[in-house]
Amino acid sequence: MKSYLEMSKEELNSEAEKLRSRYHDFQAMDLQLNMSRGVPCREQLDLSMGLMDALSSDADLTCEDGTDCRNYGVPDGIHEAKVLIGDMMENHPDNIIIYGNSSLNVMYDTVARAMTHGIMGSTPWCKLDSVKFLCPVPGYDRHFAITEYFGIEMIPVPMSETGPDMDMVEELVSSDDAIKGIWCVPKYSNPQGYSYSDQTVRRFARLKPAAHDFRIFWDNAYGVHHLYDTHQDHLIEILAECKRAGNPDLVYKFSSTSKITFPGSGIAALATSDNNLVDIRRQLRRQTIGHDKVNQLRHVRFFKDIHGLMEHMRLHADILRPKFEAVEEIFERELGGLGIGTWTKPNGGYFISFDSMEGCAKEIVARAKKAGVTLTGAGATWPYGNDPKDSNIRIAPTYPPLEDLKKAAELFTVCVKLVSAQKLLGEIK
Amino acid sequence: MKSYLEMSKEELNSEAEKLRSRYHDFQAMDLQLNMSRGVPCREQLDLSMGLMDALSSDADLTCEDGTDCRNYGVPDGIHEAKVLIGDMMENHPDNIIIYGNSSLNVMYDTVARAMTHGIMGSTPWCKLDSVKFLCPVPGYDRHFAITEYFGIEMIPVPMSETGPDMDMVEELVSSDDAIKGIWCVPKYSNPQGYSYSDQTVRRFARLKPAAHDFRIFWDNAYGVHHLYDTHQDHLIEILAECKRAGNPDLVYKFSSTSKITFPGSGIAALATSDNNLVDIRRQLRRQTIGHDKVNQLRHVRFFKDIHGLMEHMRLHADILRPKFEAVEEIFERELGGLGIGTWTKPNGGYFISFDSMEGCAKEIVARAKKAGVTLTGAGATWPYGNDPKDSNIRIAPTYPPLEDLKKAAELFTVCVKLVSAQKLLGEIK
Repeated sequence: MKSYLEMSKEELNSEAEKLRSRYHDFQAMDLQLNMSRGVPCREQLDLSMGLMDALSSDADLTCEDGTDCRNYGVPDGIHEAKVLIGDMMENHPDNIIIYGNSSLNVMYDTVARAMTHGIMGSTPWCKLDSVKFLCPVPGYDRHFAITEYFGIEMIPVPMSETGPDMDMVEELVSSDDAIKGIWCVPKYSNPQGYSYSDQTVRRFARLKPAAHDFRIFWDNAYGVHHLYDTHQDHLIEILAECKRAGNPDLVYKFSSTSKITFPGSGIAALATSDNNLVDIRRQLRRQTIGHDKVNQLRHVRFFKDIHGLMEHMRLHADILRPKFEAVEEIFERELGGLGIGTWTKPNGGYFISFDSMEGCAKEIVARAKKAGVTLTGAGATWPYGNDPKDSNIRIAPTYPPLEDLKKAAELFTVCVKLVSAQKLLGEIK
Repeated sequence: MKSYLEMSKEELNSEAEKLRSRYHDFQAMDLQLNMSRGVPCREQLDLSMGLMDALSSDADLTCEDGTDCRNYGVPDGIHEAKVLIGDMMENHPDNIIIYGNSSLNVMYDTVARAMTHGIMGSTPWCKLDSVKFLCPVPGYDRHFAITEYFGIEMIPVPMSETGPDMDMVEELVSSDDAIKGIWCVPKYSNPQGYSYSDQTVRRFARLKPAAHDFRIFWDNAYGVHHLYDTHQDHLIEILAECKRAGNPDLVYKFSSTSKITFPGSGIAALATSDNNLVDIRRQLRRQTIGHDKVNQLRHVRFFKDIHGLMEHMRLHADILRPKFEAVEEIFERELGGLGIGTWTKPNGGYFISFDSMEGCAKEIVARAKKAGVTLTGAGATWPYGNDPKDSNIRIAPTYPPLEDLKKAAELFTVCVKLVSAQKLLGEIK
């Protein structure tokens, strides 16, 4: 296929003509598809229905240590849940707090606590004139929404296939003590599906922050969310690496079962150093009577152990793999060689990241919307919703049924081509 | 029985002698009983085991409005849960947010939000030099722990059988704009089991606070926790009363099913005005991906409606009533007429409040502890753990089996009498 960039005005006009016609065909289909968020599909949810039978009315809801899960107590989680989630997160059970149903809530809470109480005795961030976070871009909009809500200034840091630009991270973190954190999705990143290289993780663990209350917010949301048995990304475990580097308290690590069992009805967890845990438990005992131990026990009885959980993830992969591959195939077929867009081909996670020509993303998303396909808003992957190049679009292929997804992906490519042609023709600014 | 206050030194010495002997008999029993917290007993928890079967693997986990409870969405709770909890709280479903498993967490979160973001546009409390809360005393230690954690100054306000001293509340709230809130357990209060009179509620609804971001923290934890079918306390619904009084935004009202189904695995809720809800939802959508909708649905399917829930509460009452009555009977028999203590006789809730002679509470609790019965720490019912008269002790009769409870109550009376006699004899300061 000839690149759009090499086409004459006539060729582009003729191409645009055909695309308009295809676009109208799509509009006539009256599609109503939502690809805006990383949401599991019905078949994935069905995989976990056994969770509903894991505890019945004649079950003994007693833990191995004798704790009655039905009553008060054990604010930081039952031991067997710490073992299961610890195996999943590759951390020792003693370094884990099991929370409620939302790791986003744990992250919010971690920022909120630092705002009102500081970190390990530091000045509460709300008492400081300036608090800043580094935000690898494109990144996760819900991370950025938390820091924005607290008035924390966000500084974008470019991502590459190996992770954030570590030269820039090191330079900023070591020179500005107003920089208190960085948002990371280190494995199968949102939205690219990149995993941080060994070198990147090692450099993270060896940061020398100017602020002693700087923390890495390590959201390992997709740690076990592989698409393939054969090619899987591997990530160096950050807590252990920080310990080796003499920086044991540098990281808060987050995870959950939201995309393993049921979003909203799973369990979330935080893993961090002993010192950080002391700091957090001081809050925890005032904050809550404890989290849902029955649901923790339900998850343990359902999976039994890490092997059960990993086997379960293979079933998820069997549902998701064809969806990712379908999108990639359609993108390659429709856009390959045109010079008007690039996209990622992740081995796991929930997203594909697409980069259009500059100044086209908003228009592409608007076009798709008018034909019945809702994508993540253009700009959402940047702090303050501001993608300076207006080029990044997050593709979330998990939720729609495969046939619908194929239609949506094809429509998307039509929108990309049409908008790109119009852009090159000077029809849109 | 002759009052200790009228006894001669010889009579008191002889009494103390006998009591020491009884105390040693108790010590010899090697008791290990915990009456420190308001914890349901095993038989109460067994009442809710049907909850485990309310949703099975072949159940349809779809809401009436078509929401799949297993997936993301609906951050403020499924409609049928709002109806059930709304009926329980006597509030319209539209004025309710269903949260996670802990109403204490909702209260913590409400204070934390005001600290970092103010209330409906007010200055964030963390930016103010002074923030104060009124604390009816004796009161609930976990309330006081939240405000203490945030450095909020706590001002004790005396409680009576009709509620807090409203003259004092009105005076303070209208004259000091640093006073931002008051903690209330308006029905079957913790620890007295008092319920606010109609007049008290009406005066609350008509407060004219100097601070426009003053809020009443109305923790109706025991709204349906009656002990009797025949004599039940009634409480005017505060949101409606505030609306009538032209003060619609004055109240945050909290409740949960912690002592209805399983503590830690129930659902919690907040009811408040439309304006306050707008304020709270602004935070909520950044804070979490939503609460546990499956557990909400589980509760709805288990209870079906408010009638099912009220019937369930009767079964709780059948278990708890004999325990309260046993304690009251033993107190009356052992302490009646002695002039060394008074106690409450609630129609509901989880506690009995005991007031010893001044300067005796700590010693009584220490004595009981040495004989194997753990009570709530003396002073816990006051802000900063500081009961200036050292006289209030919270009795929590729900958890121990009836026979153990009787022993514990009897031991308690022995400790009260022994410490009182020693006090009157000048043997303890």
